[in-house]
Amino acid sequence: MKYTIGMDVGGTKIYTILVDESNKILATSKRKTKKGSPSLLLERIESCYEDLLQQADLTSSDISGIGIGFPGPLDPRTGIVFEATNLPEWDHFPLADKVSEICKTPVFLDNDVNLGTLGEALAGAGHGAENVIGIFLGTGVGGGLVFGGRLFHGTSGTAGEVGHMIIQHKGPKSPRNLRGTVEGLTSRTSVVKKITQKIQKGTDSVLRPLVESKTQIKSRPIAEAYRAGDPLVKTVLDQTAEYVGVTIGSLGNLLAPDVVVLGGGLMEAVPEAILPVARETAKKIVVPSTWDCMKIEAAELGDNSGAMGGAVLARQLTGSA
Amino acid sequence: MKYTIGMDVGGTKIYTILVDESNKILATSKRKTKKGSPSLLLERIESCYEDLLQQADLTSSDISGIGIGFPGPLDPRTGIVFEATNLPEWDHFPLADKVSEICKTPVFLDNDVNLGTLGEALAGAGHGAENVIGIFLGTGVGGGLVFGGRLFHGTSGTAGEVGHMIIQHKGPKSPRNLRGTVEGLTSRTSVVKKITQKIQKGTDSVLRPLVESKTQIKSRPIAEAYRAGDPLVKTVLDQTAEYVGVTIGSLGNLLAPDVVVLGGGLMEAVPEAILPVARETAKKIVVPSTWDCMKIEAAELGDNSGAMGGAVLARQLTGSA
Repeated sequence: MKYTIGMDVGGTKIYTILVDESNKILATSKRKTKKGSPSLLLERIESCYEDLLQQADLTSSDISGIGIGFPGPLDPRTGIVFEATNLPEWDHFPLADKVSEICKTPVFLDNDVNLGTLGEALAGAGHGAENVIGIFLGTGVGGGLVFGGRLFHGTSGTAGEVGHMIIQHKGPKSPRNLRGTVEGLTSRTSVVKKITQKIQKGTDSVLRPLVESKTQIKSRPIAEAYRAGDPLVKTVLDQTAEYVGVTIGSLGNLLAPDVVVLGGGLMEAVPEAILPVARETAKKIVVPSTWDCMKIEAAELGDNSGAMGGAVLARQLTGSA
Repeated sequence: MKYTIGMDVGGTKIYTILVDESNKILATSKRKTKKGSPSLLLERIESCYEDLLQQADLTSSDISGIGIGFPGPLDPRTGIVFEATNLPEWDHFPLADKVSEICKTPVFLDNDVNLGTLGEALAGAGHGAENVIGIFLGTGVGGGLVFGGRLFHGTSGTAGEVGHMIIQHKGPKSPRNLRGTVEGLTSRTSVVKKITQKIQKGTDSVLRPLVESKTQIKSRPIAEAYRAGDPLVKTVLDQTAEYVGVTIGSLGNLLAPDVVVLGGGLMEAVPEAILPVARETAKKIVVPSTWDCMKIEAAELGDNSGAMGGAVLARQLTGSA
């Protein structure tokens, strides 16, 4: 039996898991990322690695590979990180090679959202489906594509940018100086912006104190306000879910997937506000013969989706599947 | 050397070609379709087949397979046509098997627009590219996806419906009771509708006599009016091209293709009105690292694109590539 390890290196935490060939999780380990130099991160990665081996009572020779998810521009073919926001030491850092030296095993690098999609597709909400689209609603909106059980990168390696698709030409202002993008209409950032603007114009809401004290509004207070029946938050989340449904409708007609997996902080906080409206909206758009073969599901793996995708990727790329 | 044949069975004509292993066209043959019974169509297919063999001085044993494009719902796996509009005799007709009996060679069936994309991808504007998206602007808007040099069908077999993507949520009324779909905003039908409405409201245009006499307006008079500098037609085609660019922008960010191929009757009639504006619009939307690897090209094979795709498909599926 050969085991693989997945690592999801985020802005604040590193999540790592060790799985067997059936994707059963045998050990997990996490650390704070502590933004800073690559060498600090490598120390933490090594510490997670040793922790995982110890927990599972295994040695390096039992591990066939490691897959690492990283948030920023990178080249999956070379394992090089091009840059990390505001951290010059990361410029063209060969992360895969460095981790491979430390852990003495092949290491593969990919975009964190791609790996989240792969993890959900093979070992989460996708349950081994062939064709899966991942949409992750958080500060921004990330996406990933799995075709035939494998990640699809497109020609430039950048495929899957669902957030930068346009679903309302000439619609509301969106990031990157565009209008009506999926990200501009469905991210938590866009939800908070809408709520804040309405409150500033006088609409009543339990979130008013947070807006007035200029506290950053995260997904949790939004979910609490929704569950407390706050009408403003309900209206904004309904609109957001409708846009999510339009996105899925378009993607369904284009790609005819088995499963669209919805994840990310906003979705995890209020799935009951997003999922039913998104399904209802998408159903009106997707042609019936496609709709009949297609599901829309909430992500199941939570914080482990990216790390699971890394473990799956390592198994696929070392041929130990 | 093994040869393959492609056939594009349209509503009005059958286009057929015979190619060698490098996709060089050795013979072409076409017939009118004469809507009616499948047996009439099979006779015409047989007649084309014999014509092709005779022209190329070959026999059945030189042909490794035939790929047929058909417009309408069908199952590529079984080669069965589910239905043809208003023609009950076509209900669940096993077209591939019937042609195989006549021509004594393996026959494969696929959607005509898919095959048009495959033909352009491998032997037309795509020049052997890995990842190609085809968008065909005609009465409706058809699309096809080629990933890794092969057609992508999705899970239900229906992938590629670019025309049913939504790019302007809550926008103008579109087919299928939707709003703001690619088809509703970029088909020739939508162009004619806009021109007609404006003329009926009093806008001046050289197309006024056609509108007043209720003559069906096809792509050719639109192109002539555009070239004659008709301001209304220019405005409508500019808007249409912008929507085409938005579509390509979204597709570029999602799929990061090598090439987006634009074809279909409207595009072939006025490429100079569509391509530059579509490129300029898409460039603003596609993330730079994707844009740098991506081209937007006019289809090159004209009426032969679907038949060429059929010939390519037959070669791929008989393993004689």
